Amino acid sequence: MSISWLGEGVTTKGVTERRFDVERGSRMIPGLLWTPETEPAKALVLLGHGGGGDKRQGYILAFARRLVRHHGFAAAAIDGPVHGDRRDPAAGEITADEFLNAWREDPTITDEMVADWRRVLDVLQEPAVLGTTPVGWWGISMGTILGLPVVAAEPRISVAVLGLAGIVGPTKQRLAADAASLRIPVLFLAQWDDEIFRRDRVFELFGAIGSSDKRFHANPGLHQDVPAEEFLASERFLARTLAPR
Amino acid sequence: MSISWLGEGVTTKGVTERRFDVERGSRMIPGLLWTPETEPAKALVLLGHGGGGDKRQGYILAFARRLVRHHGFAAAAIDGPVHGDRRDPAAGEITADEFLNAWREDPTITDEMVADWRRVLDVLQEPAVLGTTPVGWWGISMGTILGLPVVAAEPRISVAVLGLAGIVGPTKQRLAADAASLRIPVLFLAQWDDEIFRRDRVFELFGAIGSSDKRFHANPGLHQDVPAEEFLASERFLARTLAPR
Repeated sequence: MSISWLGEGVTTKGVTERRFDVERGSRMIPGLLWTPETEPAKALVLLGHGGGGDKRQGYILAFARRLVRHHGFAAAAIDGPVHGDRRDPAAGEITADEFLNAWREDPTITDEMVADWRRVLDVLQEPAVLGTTPVGWWGISMGTILGLPVVAAEPRISVAVLGLAGIVGPTKQRLAADAASLRIPVLFLAQWDDEIFRRDRVFELFGAIGSSDKRFHANPGLHQDVPAEEFLASERFLARTLAPR
Repeated sequence: MSISWLGEGVTTKGVTERRFDVERGSRMIPGLLWTPETEPAKALVLLGHGGGGDKRQGYILAFARRLVRHHGFAAAAIDGPVHGDRRDPAAGEITADEFLNAWREDPTITDEMVADWRRVLDVLQEPAVLGTTPVGWWGISMGTILGLPVVAAEPRISVAVLGLAGIVGPTKQRLAADAASLRIPVLFLAQWDDEIFRRDRVFELFGAIGSSDKRFHANPGLHQDVPAEEFLASERFLARTLAPR
């Protein structure tokens, strides 16, 4: 069996949430799938969570539910490396800094996450799960650092929301090259007063994206302060490509 | 009579367009007013056109009509200095460069435009015209260079769309100070590859705006290439403040 469902699905206000594990070789990939309660999903949005968070952190959960309720989409999230259920419970929560250090020590984390996501997408597209639908990506901060390479590698992804990241870290050149290779519509989010990524590095990453159909939305505030209006903008932007009228 | 109507209003698809002149001392201010055909306007949006354009250039006309048709707002535009009906017809059309030169030679152009707009707003708010409604500003490029000072000077303006301009020109310090004085919601538009305003100067102007409720939307392309989606974003943004649900 390529996917294992853990426990019963829970349905709240028309959104069914199911916990799954997907195997890839010796790796177990823990994830969550949100689907409309009564109808087949029109599209699937893959959600890359932030450093120090996990597959069920507040904004991921809230955004997944909106995609299901407002658009009839499915949404899926998996835990990042050394995050969530991939972390020794005794080790406690990981901080964003700890993740960045782990990544600097082991840049293959990027390749592993790309392979994990592609494997999960294969499985979610099986007829017994969602079947084949249009696919989008939403991931900011670590969801861009580790997610932009997923978007670049995966031809099934036809639209992406990225941002809150610059060209930094051990895979800098790869990030720039992956950005340059993109040809799909991109919405890029930034926080004007980001204390984690320098503004000019963030501009540089947006500038590097090869898509002609891209836009940059910046708001005042620190890294964590992405306002509700950008989640609304994300929703509209994804829907425009994934479910055009 | 404080306002003179020139000719008959013309109504197309529910939008009535009327040409007016307003006197201010010895100055005659030529303008256009768009209103809903059958109902009182819920709000008024003042439209500052771009350098080398005029009160009826393509995007002003199209945007005015959208505000009327989609939101029941009124919209008004006046000709900028040495633009449109304020220009000797024998002199032909003005270019953006010619305007910038004229402005460098005579920075009081800014004060005159501020006074013109405030006078026009007084007149449009008379009970026999629109009466008192919420008021917004939309103006990019010259519509920001000459319009941001209008927004800063005019307490009746409660929301503004600005952009496509940097802290430049003979009134640089005033522009920066006016920006810093703003406290109303602002949507700021920019073109990533703007050939007229350097990107860092544009960032600087956005950064200088004192409002905490502000956002920056940039798109690829040259100065003239503002995409349709930013007119849609402008519309939604103005409506959120001027006609909240």
